[in-house]
Amino acid sequence: MSDRKKPGQTAGTGPGGTAKDGHYARLRRAYRDEKAGGASSFRPRPKLPPGEQAPDGLVRLYGLHTVRAALDNPRRRIRRLLATRNAAERLGLPDLSALPFPAELVEPRDIDRLTGSDAVHQGVLIEAEPLAPKRLDALGDAPLVLVLDQVTDPHNVGAILRSAVAFGAGALITTARHSPAESGVLAKSASGALEHVDHIEVRNLAEALATLHAAGYQSIGLDSDGPAELEATFSGKKIALVLGAEGKGLRQRTRETVTALARLDMPGAIRSLNVSNAAAVALYAARKFLG
Amino acid sequence: MSDRKKPGQTAGTGPGGTAKDGHYARLRRAYRDEKAGGASSFRPRPKLPPGEQAPDGLVRLYGLHTVRAALDNPRRRIRRLLATRNAAERLGLPDLSALPFPAELVEPRDIDRLTGSDAVHQGVLIEAEPLAPKRLDALGDAPLVLVLDQVTDPHNVGAILRSAVAFGAGALITTARHSPAESGVLAKSASGALEHVDHIEVRNLAEALATLHAAGYQSIGLDSDGPAELEATFSGKKIALVLGAEGKGLRQRTRETVTALARLDMPGAIRSLNVSNAAAVALYAARKFLG
Repeated sequence: MSDRKKPGQTAGTGPGGTAKDGHYARLRRAYRDEKAGGASSFRPRPKLPPGEQAPDGLVRLYGLHTVRAALDNPRRRIRRLLATRNAAERLGLPDLSALPFPAELVEPRDIDRLTGSDAVHQGVLIEAEPLAPKRLDALGDAPLVLVLDQVTDPHNVGAILRSAVAFGAGALITTARHSPAESGVLAKSASGALEHVDHIEVRNLAEALATLHAAGYQSIGLDSDGPAELEATFSGKKIALVLGAEGKGLRQRTRETVTALARLDMPGAIRSLNVSNAAAVALYAARKFLG
Repeated sequence: MSDRKKPGQTAGTGPGGTAKDGHYARLRRAYRDEKAGGASSFRPRPKLPPGEQAPDGLVRLYGLHTVRAALDNPRRRIRRLLATRNAAERLGLPDLSALPFPAELVEPRDIDRLTGSDAVHQGVLIEAEPLAPKRLDALGDAPLVLVLDQVTDPHNVGAILRSAVAFGAGALITTARHSPAESGVLAKSASGALEHVDHIEVRNLAEALATLHAAGYQSIGLDSDGPAELEATFSGKKIALVLGAEGKGLRQRTRETVTALARLDMPGAIRSLNVSNAAAVALYAARKFLG
């Protein structure tokens, strides 16, 4: 955005590759991590790649919001917790030995060794069983659900989960194939939302949409070439918003199956949004309509 | 999202750290890159870290949308272009020697060596001068502008730029300090939007807001504890939306200076959005209000 180097910023792509990974950015992140969950003095930690894989079948979740939400979720089976003294305090866990699973006080670098030092783990990490996805017949009576047609980027899906929970969507429906596996990155981007929304996996999205229609849902596929604007398309009392992957959009079969295709009106020189931004706008508009 | 490994996905955090960096994800990305800008056969490229820094004062921009927009921007001074044969075709550049700057046909791995193999460069990269930020007195008569109070994450700022252009914001205003430098990551997330919006840098945000007020803008700071809902807060014909960094929010001085603080109503268990998602929703709502 600027042609001048700024304090705490590197201009252009440095040896670390991007402004985010630049030297000062690393120092700043190290400082922030130390403040959030680390030792008491500012001492940049060595850069480390991610370590060995989590034990078979488990996922590693990290970050204060993410771990707090997991601790509060009775469905989440935690096998192990690692926390710095500072992070344990911030999570309200004065006595780790009182937890119903193994838990250890560690130094920030011990978590770095597992997540890599680029992960903003804030001094806490758990190893846990992934949440088992539900089947479509577990869908309750939620007036608003979100359907993803092969959106896989974990940062985007995490942000989408967060918006889905914020705007009160009752479920996130994905296909079993071509959807992102639960991961630390996804969970961190979701900022705890992973624990708050039912994830429903279906084999065949077109069949699932037909089932939703039979249950009274209007399904609306977001499409920049849709025939009408989203807000003008809403009708009925139950809405399923359907989003495709960036670049690819909705698959042909999905386009043919949804109740309606609709666009977000964008007057500017760019006519598509980042998929998580499109999801947030659509959820906001649907929530306004449903009241 | 699932406890089963899926084709093309790794469960949990693997040696590569995240689902995004898993083995299959790398193969998939390599395949996509090859299709988009690489050689004609599927041949995963070796994983490479980002290479040496761009020549002094230049930025490296990559990706088809990003480079296309830069080529179309008369303000953008390009010093050098590298493209695969496939990417050159997709950009409509049959004769690289006809370009008014040095340009070379290369193999995908030649670009990998500069960006690192994790960057989705799609076979094209330019080295260019960063766009010089403008001063506040360059602000025209745009009815909608976006103000960022120390938002620095390049992925988020890139997505915000894209939404700002899509919803017709006339400028992005940031402080000179604590704003992200132009970079490949930011530009790629902006998907060309970097070339379409005026970036205005100010030294003092509170003074800039006062100037905006004098020019007839209502400035609205997004705040999850705001006294009223965003749509109920709009008034007047010119709006400046002000967003703070995730976690930190707006600085105290900013909160005291804006015309109004407002919240996005979120009925769910999570009450904050990813900052780029919040920006997209606010821009959408403001655009609806302004008509």
